[in-house]
Amino acid sequence: MVENVLTALFGDPFAVMNTIGLVAFAFVGSSKAIREEFDVFGITIVGLAMAFAGGVTRDLLVTRVPLALQSPIEIILGLLGVGLAIALGVVFNAPETHPITIVADAIGLASFTTAGAIVATTAGFPVFGIVAIGTINAVGGGAFADILLDRSPFILFEDFYATCAVLGASAYWFVGTFGAAGSVAAVTCSAAAVVTRLAAVSYDWTLPTVNDM
Amino acid sequence: MVENVLTALFGDPFAVMNTIGLVAFAFVGSSKAIREEFDVFGITIVGLAMAFAGGVTRDLLVTRVPLALQSPIEIILGLLGVGLAIALGVVFNAPETHPITIVADAIGLASFTTAGAIVATTAGFPVFGIVAIGTINAVGGGAFADILLDRSPFILFEDFYATCAVLGASAYWFVGTFGAAGSVAAVTCSAAAVVTRLAAVSYDWTLPTVNDM
Amino acid sequence: MVENVLTALFGDPFAVMNTIGLVAFAFVGSSKAIREEFDVFGITIVGLAMAFAGGVTRDLLVTRVPLALQSPIEIILGLLGVGLAIALGVVFNAPETHPITIVADAIGLASFTTAGAIVATTAGFPVFGIVAIGTINAVGGGAFADILLDRSPFILFEDFYATCAVLGASAYWFVGTFGAAGSVAAVTCSAAAVVTRLAAVSYDWTLPTVNDM
Repeated sequence: MVENVLTALFGDPFAVMNTIGLVAFAFVGSSKAIREEFDVFGITIVGLAMAFAGGVTRDLLVTRVPLALQSPIEIILGLLGVGLAIALGVVFNAPETHPITIVADAIGLASFTTAGAIVATTAGFPVFGIVAIGTINAVGGGAFADILLDRSPFILFEDFYATCAVLGASAYWFVGTFGAAGSVAAVTCSAAAVVTRLAAVSYDWTLPTVNDM
Repeated sequence: MVENVLTALFGDPFAVMNTIGLVAFAFVGSSKAIREEFDVFGITIVGLAMAFAGGVTRDLLVTRVPLALQSPIEIILGLLGVGLAIALGVVFNAPETHPITIVADAIGLASFTTAGAIVATTAGFPVFGIVAIGTINAVGGGAFADILLDRSPFILFEDFYATCAVLGASAYWFVGTFGAAGSVAAVTCSAAAVVTRLAAVSYDWTLPTVNDM
Repeated sequence: MVENVLTALFGDPFAVMNTIGLVAFAFVGSSKAIREEFDVFGITIVGLAMAFAGGVTRDLLVTRVPLALQSPIEIILGLLGVGLAIALGVVFNAPETHPITIVADAIGLASFTTAGAIVATTAGFPVFGIVAIGTINAVGGGAFADILLDRSPFILFEDFYATCAVLGASAYWFVGTFGAAGSVAAVTCSAAAVVTRLAAVSYDWTLPTVNDM
């Protein structure tokens, strides 16, 4: 019953997750560039780089031609996210640290974790490959955007960012292995990633450094 | 008639464009490293990285083994560009900002845009894929060299750099679609990219930032 | 006779070299992150990034699915290196510059040069491809770790780092071409790389800069 509703809503879970992730991450990447006072061109490039870097890396790892090169729909979704960030940047002063941006980032993280887990499962990878590809799909874009902005990638400082992707992709594998439909696995994965990420931000979860030991 | 002359001159447009691009970008990459006061080894590595990063990325995106790994001719062309940059660096103080370097960079940009557009067309990509692969081939090397030098890639600040590659690759597709020979499309693409790039440098074209709005 | 002993010890030279390289480079990458005062999570990510980046790049260049995504053994070896670095970091103050780390780095360099040369030879590349892939396998991890830590990759400043990999991979091709068993070629390659690297560190070998000329 729940399965039927979800399957109706998410006819193609990959397409749904990929669409959400592209818009969300283009929005977040552009917000980072706005904070660095880039012009419209630089904002667009960083937004598209954040939206596409994770998925292109995923496609290279499963040795297929990147989706983003085969369809103009993907870049249109990316440009939509860029446009939203510019609109928000005109209205607010600090788009990168605005709660909307933090929530969009968590949603993008969860969507791309799910998209990566679906692709890896379809390509026949074992559990470790599913988790690795889901995580790379989710964190690759943000890491690449930070490298372009000449920062050390924030995923190295945020203990519960890549960790949330690992949890989500593990949940995807676990639920799928127990015979649930792909749409149920996709919803479980997304929920696990987004809930742990927002909880980590809200409660400021951290892990110790070696000097604490 | 024009077609016949161009075809005679450019028997294999890809080989011509790839050769010019490798020498030009190795020269520019090495000039960047000279400005940062690297030694001969570092200059060579940055020069080769700038010459090869775009083309290797292009080959990975169309899922074929990179050309640069299959033929020693490619690295010899790269080393020629490195040698020219060292010679210029000994003669002049600031090779990175010398007009020769700026022109070489525009020529490399145009050549690699064309080389990428040819590979993508041959591989059967739609127009969006041709433009994306031409642009990545053209700007990938410079962006990677800047990341190695721990700078934010200058393509993010130069509005009319990646844009020139987009224009050139679009022209390649447009001319080719209307039935012109590959050599005519290649010349059109190169001319569009190099002319817009040199005009942008000469007249200091820029786009607005969000704060201007 | 020597060949028989080596083949017995190194039944599968690739597996031996890959195992040593993964532990050594995870150890070195984690030591870099400890010096930058990252927490346990960041230390783990940088260690795994250094261990896997070279081999994944190698696998992409020969267009096969990365090994690291197909087997959990690889990540377990990486985590072992991370654990050793944390243990050493608790005991000593400066794990990155400790002699143990410098020796581990030279061993990782030699092991991954050999692993890359074996893969390229098996995939049928000519001598130039063997040297390029061996070198990229060896230096890719360290360069990527430095980029993550927002440093300019140290391979650009160390004249005898990538050079040692080039020497080792050339030796692999030379010995293999003269009909020696793979295990003999592997030992020759590793020895050439590790000896030249440790000699370069001990005697502080450098090359001139353009300003010296």
